[in-house]
Amino acid sequence: MTNTNLDRLKTLLAEVDDLRKASTILFWDQRVMMPPGGAQARAEALATVGRLTHEKFISQEIGDLLGELDEGDYDYESLEASLIRVTRRDYEKAVRVPPELTGEMRHSAAIALSAWGPAKQNSDFKALLPHLERNLELRRRYVECFPKQAETYDVLLDDYEPLMKTAEVRAIFDTLKEELRPLIREVADAGEVDSSFLHGDFDVQKQREFAFRVVRQFGFTDDEWRLDETPHPFMSSPGEGDIRLTTNYRPTELNSIFASMHEFGHGIYERGVAPELHRTPLGTGVSLGVHESQSRSWENLIGRSRAFWRHFYPSLQETFSEQLGEVDEEAFYRAVNKVHPSLIRIEADEVTYNMHIILRFELEQELIEGRLAPKDLPQAWGERMHEYLGIDVPDDARGVLQDMHWAGGSLGYFPTYSLGNVISVQIWERLKEDVGDVDDQMERGEFGEIREWLRSHLYVLGRKFTPQETIERVTGSRIDSRPYVRYLREKLAPQHA
Amino acid sequence: MTNTNLDRLKTLLAEVDDLRKASTILFWDQRVMMPPGGAQARAEALATVGRLTHEKFISQEIGDLLGELDEGDYDYESLEASLIRVTRRDYEKAVRVPPELTGEMRHSAAIALSAWGPAKQNSDFKALLPHLERNLELRRRYVECFPKQAETYDVLLDDYEPLMKTAEVRAIFDTLKEELRPLIREVADAGEVDSSFLHGDFDVQKQREFAFRVVRQFGFTDDEWRLDETPHPFMSSPGEGDIRLTTNYRPTELNSIFASMHEFGHGIYERGVAPELHRTPLGTGVSLGVHESQSRSWENLIGRSRAFWRHFYPSLQETFSEQLGEVDEEAFYRAVNKVHPSLIRIEADEVTYNMHIILRFELEQELIEGRLAPKDLPQAWGERMHEYLGIDVPDDARGVLQDMHWAGGSLGYFPTYSLGNVISVQIWERLKEDVGDVDDQMERGEFGEIREWLRSHLYVLGRKFTPQETIERVTGSRIDSRPYVRYLREKLAPQHA
Repeated sequence: MTNTNLDRLKTLLAEVDDLRKASTILFWDQRVMMPPGGAQARAEALATVGRLTHEKFISQEIGDLLGELDEGDYDYESLEASLIRVTRRDYEKAVRVPPELTGEMRHSAAIALSAWGPAKQNSDFKALLPHLERNLELRRRYVECFPKQAETYDVLLDDYEPLMKTAEVRAIFDTLKEELRPLIREVADAGEVDSSFLHGDFDVQKQREFAFRVVRQFGFTDDEWRLDETPHPFMSSPGEGDIRLTTNYRPTELNSIFASMHEFGHGIYERGVAPELHRTPLGTGVSLGVHESQSRSWENLIGRSRAFWRHFYPSLQETFSEQLGEVDEEAFYRAVNKVHPSLIRIEADEVTYNMHIILRFELEQELIEGRLAPKDLPQAWGERMHEYLGIDVPDDARGVLQDMHWAGGSLGYFPTYSLGNVISVQIWERLKEDVGDVDDQMERGEFGEIREWLRSHLYVLGRKFTPQETIERVTGSRIDSRPYVRYLREKLAPQHA
Repeated sequence: MTNTNLDRLKTLLAEVDDLRKASTILFWDQRVMMPPGGAQARAEALATVGRLTHEKFISQEIGDLLGELDEGDYDYESLEASLIRVTRRDYEKAVRVPPELTGEMRHSAAIALSAWGPAKQNSDFKALLPHLERNLELRRRYVECFPKQAETYDVLLDDYEPLMKTAEVRAIFDTLKEELRPLIREVADAGEVDSSFLHGDFDVQKQREFAFRVVRQFGFTDDEWRLDETPHPFMSSPGEGDIRLTTNYRPTELNSIFASMHEFGHGIYERGVAPELHRTPLGTGVSLGVHESQSRSWENLIGRSRAFWRHFYPSLQETFSEQLGEVDEEAFYRAVNKVHPSLIRIEADEVTYNMHIILRFELEQELIEGRLAPKDLPQAWGERMHEYLGIDVPDDARGVLQDMHWAGGSLGYFPTYSLGNVISVQIWERLKEDVGDVDDQMERGEFGEIREWLRSHLYVLGRKFTPQETIERVTGSRIDSRPYVRYLREKLAPQHA
């Protein structure tokens, strides 16, 4: 059935998507390539393109077309129905926000991001504070564009995890707190795992070669992927067939390998979205939580598994023979899975990681509800770190300044990381039922069938369904923290047995 | 005097400029960073951003504001008068062209550019031919948007060298042909200069370090500049304080140093534009000819001078001691200034270079007037190379496929290179009168006063005046080929004495 209204809608949405892709490149370039002197011009370009994208999307014509189109005319699972349904929801949200505010938020975020790097480097919270205050003020104006929700934070969360409510997240996180805090104590009581050999002299060029080797074996190819270096790794996809990972090489640690695997997980999700969804609002991952489930799968469920290291450890050991020559595979496996409270979220182990997220989730709610002023963040951060992980924060660089999210204007983003952990194990369990000999394949260094299962069951769907629908289609159940807790308990069992 | 109409015009023009900056980054990234798989999505993004930029610029509101504003209310030299005057001319041209055509031209060019690389690599003209035909067809439609000119080519030329006519260029080029063809023969009769040592083993990493050293001494700084690698070097400026050069390192030649100096010349021009002109249509170089005068100044008038090499040669010799250890400064100077007909434009010496341009200038006129079909380009190219330079073209990679311009949809661009040569010497003569001890400064490796003279006399003007006005303000005369011919004759005199 041809439908000229639908064709016209697709044409208009394709243009909006082109503009989003332009912003993606402006943003990627800002973080990976741009000399600092370009910050002001870039903030202006990002603001203008962001505002125009917004204006284009909430145009009268798109509104009229959505008014005339009826998703009920099509099968619920069809591209057509999904396109109308998802676009309608996006539109109804977007039309409430003045494009000028979008532009202002983009501009403020771009300027704040440029200030964040030096502020972090100098551990100078005061230098970032006015930017955080400005971002928060703009976020408050943003929240006011929407009808009152059960909780103010619901509005923020919805941008990253559509249709998820703060109360649901809190329930999941309460379970995690309850389960993980005793687990962290048990692990501590069982005595320290030796991970001293993970700190030392790891030649950056060799790390780079190893990171490339791993992601290539996962499915990275030069004709469609890049892997660059940034202080704070991220993934960016400025087009179908153009997937960009970044990682961070440090001469004293092997973190680059795990960061590369993490970003690969984000990238392969984007790469797997069905081709017919590109240049529509459906052509990307369904939510940040589900996205994170894939980065965490490739980083942790694959990249910190025994099977993975059975394959890769001999060559890692050979590459860094001075550091690892005397370290056997089991000792290495235990070290990279060591549970130990630490200061930096992105370096945290699989268990304590969630406490870092819960801390941010709580502070974000207090910020947006006005119960906490940005100027008091360092103190609140320190207190909560002490409470949840029992450690003291020596400086803001290793505290509240460590992440770029708040500088980038993202409030409501953090909880999706732990939701991703939870979802990752739900999906992984289904994958293992279907694929069967997952561990054997990983031991052989084969990742094609794993990747293909994830692509055909999850990645291909893009944003056709809601996050909850997507999770249910793939796993057969709603979001559920029990498999994740079980996975952690099992993984750590021998360690504190 | 405040003028709300003018302020509003500035606001609208700033947005247009932001969109242009977005295109600049999309284009730079396409050529320097993008994996090949991103070509389709990038072509779409470039087309959409290009079309929207055009739509924004020819908006009713800008038209109305220009109708109400009168440049006569301001001093001719003021920012206000220039802004109204130059914008009006741009607007009157742009309003004739349908934005859809702009989008199509952008799209076709982006796709053709992606095809050009492989076509050149495989010397496969047929692979590029349909793209050239499409570009030419779109260019014809573009020409038809404008009133009939004395010559069809006038319309194309005006986009790169505003207000210049084909007949004027032809007159200048006829003089160059007349003067340079006998000069090329004289030089040939005087016997071959030894340049064999310029071909050999030149470590790429050492070349990179040397190129950086030179441009740093010229004025490149890490906080505002980049120098990357591309097959076909270019300069790009996506914002004030964000200047990007590219060069091309080959393990058997030193071309990277000259390419880097060339692109530095383009970059320092953009960097020197007066700050108050940024985010307006005045905030860039005035024409490609004047732009090229600066790239050629820094590459040739500075970078191939005796004084420059008196400073840099000892360290170059030390860097490549195996290749250059036995080569004295004078021999090196003569070798990098050797006049000898060759196949590749960007590697050509200062004299024969112009014959490469004249060839392209003539073929472009024949193409747009329909006297030459794209499919017949290789043959026409070969015949003219034989006629003008007496050499045979072995394959299309070293013939018609060597330049990206036609693939990128640029027709009318080439003549600006030789105009740049001509203008460069006119400006340089004035600079030498004012600065005095230019050679002494270069011998000491000092370029600050040269750079500052060029900035304060030329770069700062941006597009405030017409190219001809700009040239006259700086040099006191109209464009004139005689100083350039005199410069070449003097430079080559000892060589064939």
